[in-house]
Amino acid sequence: MPKISQRGIDMPASPIRKLAPFAVAAKQKGIKVYHLNIGQPDLPTPQEGLEALKHVDRTVLEYSPSQGYQSYLDKLVDYYARYDISLTTDNIIVTCGGSEALQFAFMACFNPGDELIVPEPVYANYMGFACEMGVKVRTITTKIDNGFALPAIEEFEKLINGRTRAIMICNPNNPTGTLYTREEMEQLRDLVKKYDLYLIADEVYREYVYSDKPYVSAMHLEGIEQNVVLIDSVSKRYSECGIRIGAFITRNAELRAAVMKFAQARLSPPLIGQVVAEASVDAPQQYHKDVYDEYIARRNCLVEGLNKIPGVFTPMPMGAFYTVVRLPVQDSDDFCRWCLEEFSYEGETVMMAPATGFYATPGAGKNEVRMAYVLKIDDLKRALIVLEKALEAYNKR
Amino acid sequence: MPKISQRGIDMPASPIRKLAPFAVAAKQKGIKVYHLNIGQPDLPTPQEGLEALKHVDRTVLEYSPSQGYQSYLDKLVDYYARYDISLTTDNIIVTCGGSEALQFAFMACFNPGDELIVPEPVYANYMGFACEMGVKVRTITTKIDNGFALPAIEEFEKLINGRTRAIMICNPNNPTGTLYTREEMEQLRDLVKKYDLYLIADEVYREYVYSDKPYVSAMHLEGIEQNVVLIDSVSKRYSECGIRIGAFITRNAELRAAVMKFAQARLSPPLIGQVVAEASVDAPQQYHKDVYDEYIARRNCLVEGLNKIPGVFTPMPMGAFYTVVRLPVQDSDDFCRWCLEEFSYEGETVMMAPATGFYATPGAGKNEVRMAYVLKIDDLKRALIVLEKALEAYNKR
Repeated sequence: MPKISQRGIDMPASPIRKLAPFAVAAKQKGIKVYHLNIGQPDLPTPQEGLEALKHVDRTVLEYSPSQGYQSYLDKLVDYYARYDISLTTDNIIVTCGGSEALQFAFMACFNPGDELIVPEPVYANYMGFACEMGVKVRTITTKIDNGFALPAIEEFEKLINGRTRAIMICNPNNPTGTLYTREEMEQLRDLVKKYDLYLIADEVYREYVYSDKPYVSAMHLEGIEQNVVLIDSVSKRYSECGIRIGAFITRNAELRAAVMKFAQARLSPPLIGQVVAEASVDAPQQYHKDVYDEYIARRNCLVEGLNKIPGVFTPMPMGAFYTVVRLPVQDSDDFCRWCLEEFSYEGETVMMAPATGFYATPGAGKNEVRMAYVLKIDDLKRALIVLEKALEAYNKR
Repeated sequence: MPKISQRGIDMPASPIRKLAPFAVAAKQKGIKVYHLNIGQPDLPTPQEGLEALKHVDRTVLEYSPSQGYQSYLDKLVDYYARYDISLTTDNIIVTCGGSEALQFAFMACFNPGDELIVPEPVYANYMGFACEMGVKVRTITTKIDNGFALPAIEEFEKLINGRTRAIMICNPNNPTGTLYTREEMEQLRDLVKKYDLYLIADEVYREYVYSDKPYVSAMHLEGIEQNVVLIDSVSKRYSECGIRIGAFITRNAELRAAVMKFAQARLSPPLIGQVVAEASVDAPQQYHKDVYDEYIARRNCLVEGLNKIPGVFTPMPMGAFYTVVRLPVQDSDDFCRWCLEEFSYEGETVMMAPATGFYATPGAGKNEVRMAYVLKIDDLKRALIVLEKALEAYNKR
């Protein structure tokens, strides 16, 4: 039997999936599982997007242009202008989800063995794509006690060497919900400029910023226009993760030309997804307000509830719909497995993502979990009760 | 400005796209261009697929499972059984087009620097994906005069060394239209077994086999069940290239496990594409007969017409909807550009793909082009006239 590749061996398994068999088994026993582990919003896709689907009057579902449809690119330029991000259609390449935009960025910015600096806890799939493309990830640990704020810029600078090619951030952050301040962003800008690095900014949660301070995109930073790569996706902003539409965005023409070759090799982003995404850009303000208000209410419910449980702490997330939570346990991997495999309270249990999967540093996050607030308020309330009972029972064993 | 990666520099441009600006300019001058260069079928998507699109009654367009929907996987098992390919749903991972299946294969089967052997002329994007994943491509040149049949197996064996990991074929072949015989396939099987290589078989054109001999899939070969990777796509068989649905298929559980990690990192194949593809599997026999008959008629029209033009030769393709054509010119890159930039006949011209882009061997294919017969018969007839006039004029300059 032929051998599989080393990257096939080294590729990390998804931290939100490794407990999946235990959840299946729990459900088979008739236990109701509250999924605090996943980032699949339950809120509706805009009606405009769903309607567009019913009115596709093509007889051939043909390739779209490799860059994406011109009409959708035009809409995107208008969309970004709402956030004071000034782009031309040439700056944008439509991708198969944010995932493909990340793959393109890793392929175009790094040679195998080159290094990426990213704060941890970190969206785990960054590490997966880095493994695929031979990129070495160096993480800077952020701390739950100060809300996962960026460490002093000197901490980044210490990690920079001749192989460093990029700094990457997710802002607002998955998994922590942290929103970076203007000061933090400007420090990153200065560092990127000083060492002529790429700044790869994943900003797929920009709709979900729960602060009065203005949102600072990497695209707003002056003086590093040629260094910034924006990773985007419509998955979360219109609750349409399944259509697989994202974008790779840069003002750097040389980088754009390289990525267009990758885009042409894979031929085309999804046609129907683009139709849905284009229509969704026209979702009314009320849609966004309803979704936003719902997330605020869920966040408040979850965070306040968590911090009332003895020994539990989570900072107030200022963006996205996740939070990292410190639990009074030694080993959250074991606790999360135990909740599914050995525990239930009145026929119910909770599923959480152990935070160790979001850290590259061995041993980090052992008493933390990531939770997403994509459940209805009543379910969140119930999940909080079940979690409190689970912690009591687990620590009494 | 930060540097782009070496693979960004080395990545080959698509041979079917490098002439695109000349085609745009020709159209702007009011010249009608017959597109013999592209593989985008003009035939309709099955009504079943189009209808399914209109009946998506979901309110959230959510992630599908990373492996693909169970109902679609079940359908695919039935589909392959029609071709005597016996699979379980575990063997199949749904991908974003055949393109992603190829990327998965290259990531999982090769370490950077490992070698792939493939007959040339070759589907150019194999070389693109190889560049992305650090795979070294070694080609074996096949010859137009014997219909691009596989060379003696000793020619393959000469290229095998300690870094060789796989042999790859496209069968029926893009760009040549060649269909490999049972004898050829069994020779490959013996070689793959002897050296314990992967056999990666791209069989996306299996519906378009114009021979009475039984179609021999790599999946039919006995004794190398653990070595075969099947690359598939619904793009061509249902004329739905834009929905981006393909499949990575293997009976090798270890390889499958590695690819599932890659599949999980990118979260999900397109949801709506799967809905369309699943419905399209139910297209009636008459749909396939109509499409098949149309391609046969087009092939005969194009191939007979080409071989009547003085100095032109193309073998009779036995599958797919392409053929490689020898022209009485020294430099088909120049001729194809010239047709768009400097020539027209009664306000019309032809666009072809220079064959050099389908060879890795420098200088090979200089007097060849690839043509696709995805145009209506009347357009093909007219394109033949325009081509004959173009050759006359080009050689009289």
